[in-house]
Amino acid sequence: MITTDIAIIGAGPTGMFAVFEAGLLKMHCHLIDSLPQTGGQLSEIYPQKPIYDIPGYPAINAQELVDKLEEQIAPFHPGYTLGERVETLKKQGDGTWLIGTNEGTEISCKAVVIAGGLGCFEPRKPEVDRLAEFEGKGVMYAVRNPEAFRDREIVIAGGGDSALDWTIFLANVAKKVTLVHRGDTFRGAPDAAEKVAELAKIGAIDLVLKSRVVALDGTGHLEQVSIIGADNQTRHLPADNFIPLFGLSPKLGPIENWGLNIDKSAIEVNTMDYSTNVEGIYAIGDINTYPGKLKLILCGFHEAALMAQSAFKYVYPDQRLTFKYTTVYGITELA
Amino acid sequence: MITTDIAIIGAGPTGMFAVFEAGLLKMHCHLIDSLPQTGGQLSEIYPQKPIYDIPGYPAINAQELVDKLEEQIAPFHPGYTLGERVETLKKQGDGTWLIGTNEGTEISCKAVVIAGGLGCFEPRKPEVDRLAEFEGKGVMYAVRNPEAFRDREIVIAGGGDSALDWTIFLANVAKKVTLVHRGDTFRGAPDAAEKVAELAKIGAIDLVLKSRVVALDGTGHLEQVSIIGADNQTRHLPADNFIPLFGLSPKLGPIENWGLNIDKSAIEVNTMDYSTNVEGIYAIGDINTYPGKLKLILCGFHEAALMAQSAFKYVYPDQRLTFKYTTVYGITELA
Repeated sequence: MITTDIAIIGAGPTGMFAVFEAGLLKMHCHLIDSLPQTGGQLSEIYPQKPIYDIPGYPAINAQELVDKLEEQIAPFHPGYTLGERVETLKKQGDGTWLIGTNEGTEISCKAVVIAGGLGCFEPRKPEVDRLAEFEGKGVMYAVRNPEAFRDREIVIAGGGDSALDWTIFLANVAKKVTLVHRGDTFRGAPDAAEKVAELAKIGAIDLVLKSRVVALDGTGHLEQVSIIGADNQTRHLPADNFIPLFGLSPKLGPIENWGLNIDKSAIEVNTMDYSTNVEGIYAIGDINTYPGKLKLILCGFHEAALMAQSAFKYVYPDQRLTFKYTTVYGITELA
Repeated sequence: MITTDIAIIGAGPTGMFAVFEAGLLKMHCHLIDSLPQTGGQLSEIYPQKPIYDIPGYPAINAQELVDKLEEQIAPFHPGYTLGERVETLKKQGDGTWLIGTNEGTEISCKAVVIAGGLGCFEPRKPEVDRLAEFEGKGVMYAVRNPEAFRDREIVIAGGGDSALDWTIFLANVAKKVTLVHRGDTFRGAPDAAEKVAELAKIGAIDLVLKSRVVALDGTGHLEQVSIIGADNQTRHLPADNFIPLFGLSPKLGPIENWGLNIDKSAIEVNTMDYSTNVEGIYAIGDINTYPGKLKLILCGFHEAALMAQSAFKYVYPDQRLTFKYTTVYGITELA
C-alpha cells in the first residue's frame, strides 16, 4: 500500500502544480491518473498546440508546459500511479482516506485533492452492431502499439486528426488499411487529409467516404466489418481489427458517488480554500465550480495554492503554518 | 486627455497580466505607476532575485518575468503613464471615471482596476534633525544617477543590500564615501559585506559602525552630517550628500479616500470577479483582501482573469461575451 500526505486524483497541470504548493509546506503528494502519462488534456489531446494565456509565456506548447511543471515539482519527489483509474474512496477509522484503483492499487492519505479536469476520458463509441462483443477481440479505441497491426487487415473509422494520422502511419505497417468516413471532407489537418487522399490514389490505402461501419462479425475474434454507403448498399470487408477514432468523451465516473455536492458534472467548492462539502476532500481545476469560475489553467494554479494552505492545517493540525516567499527563502527539497 | 476602456493603477505583474486578459476580450488598457518602469516590486526591489513559484518556471529572475509579461501584453498595445502617482479619481456625469496624477495627466476610462501591490512605496526615513529641510538639497533616498555624485563627499546610512551595493559602486565615483551603520554586522549579502570591509581596510571608504546620523547642517545646501557613536560621542563630517537607504515602506495613499471598503490597508473584494464595493472599480493582486487571500503573483493572475470577464460586461453591457481558449483560437492583436 502506498502512503502519502495528499493523494491527487488527476495529473494534469493543476494537479501537478498542487504538488509544488504542497511541497513548499513540506507535504508529500501522490498523483494518480487514468492516462498513462502526466499532463492530462495537454499531453493527451493537444501536446503540440501553443497556449498563449499562461502568464509569463507569450506562447508555450502544451507538452512543453507539462515538461516544465514536471521539472518544477521534481524536488518534491511526488509518487505516481499512472494508467490506473480511481474507483473507490473510503474514510478509514483513523480519519485517513483509502483510495483504490481499477488495477487494485491502494493509496492511503490524509487529504484528497480531486484535480480530475473534465473527468476520465472515454472513447466515443459509434453505434455498430456487436461492437461491445468484439472489444479486445479486434476492436480497439486507441493505437497503443502500432506493431500489433503488422500484416493485419484493419478498418479505421473517423474524420479527425487521429483517424487521418493513424491511417497514414499504419499504411506502412498493416497488410491493408481501409479508412471509413461518414462525410467527404475531413475535420483534421489539411495536409494530413491531402496525404490520405494521395495514399488512396496510389492504392496504398482504401478510402471509403460517405459511409459508415454498421456491423461486425466473426467467431471469437473479429473477422468481418459491414459498411453501408450513401447508396444504402452494404459491403462486407474482411478485417482483423476495427479502430473507431471518434475522439474522447469526458465522464465524471465514480467521483459522482462520493457524497460530494455536484452541479452540472462539476464539484461545488468554497473559494476560500477550494474545499468540498466533505472535510478533507478538495477539488481544484476544471472539475470544480463556483461563482465566476473560468476553466483556465492559470485559475487551477491559484486554486492549488489556496488549497495547499488549508490542507496543511487539515493534515498537520498541530503545526504552525509560516507563509514564506520563494524569492526570499528559495525552495527546499522534500526528503 | 488619455481615453481608454480600462485604467489600471499599478504596473506590476498583476496589472500587466490584466492587460492581456482584457485584451483577449478586445478591451484597451492604460497602465499607470508611480515607479518609472513596469514590474512593480519585482523591478524595483529584487530584479535579479529568482522566483520559484511561477507555475511553469522552475526558476525565473524577477526582471525576466517582467520582460516576458511585457512581451505577452505587447500585442494589445497598452498605454503607459509611468513615474506619476495617481492622486484623484472622480466619476463623471456620463458614468466614466476620470483619473488625475500628481503631474496633471488625466485619464478617462470606463472601468478602473486597482493593481497597486502594497500601495505606493515610500522610502523609510530615519529620525535625523533637519532631514526634511535638506531633501532635494543634498538628501536623497535613492541613487538614480551615480554620476551626480562624482567628486562629491557622500554619507550613506543603512545595513542592507542597497547600502552595501551603492557604497561599493560609489567608492569609484565619489571623492569620499562614508557608510554609517547602526550595528556591526550587515543584513545584506555576505560577499557585499566582505567587499565593504575590504574597501574600508584599504582606505577606499570610511566605515562607521555602531553609529547613526543624528543631524544635518548647511546653508541652503547640505554641508555637514553629525554622527553619534556607541560611546555617545558626536562627530561632524563634511558632506555634499546624505543617502539614507533603509528600504521602502508601503503606503495606500489617496486610494484610501475613494469610498472603498478597506480592511488593514487592503481593499475588500468579491471573489466572484474581484470587484470592490464601488461599481466599476476592481482590485486585484496584493492590494486586495478576501477570505483565504495569499499575496502571491500567481493569485494576481487568476484575479485578473476573472476581473476581465466581469469588467467586459460593465464596459460593454450590450455585447455578448463569448469565452474562448487561446489554444483553439490564438490571440488577435488589438488595433
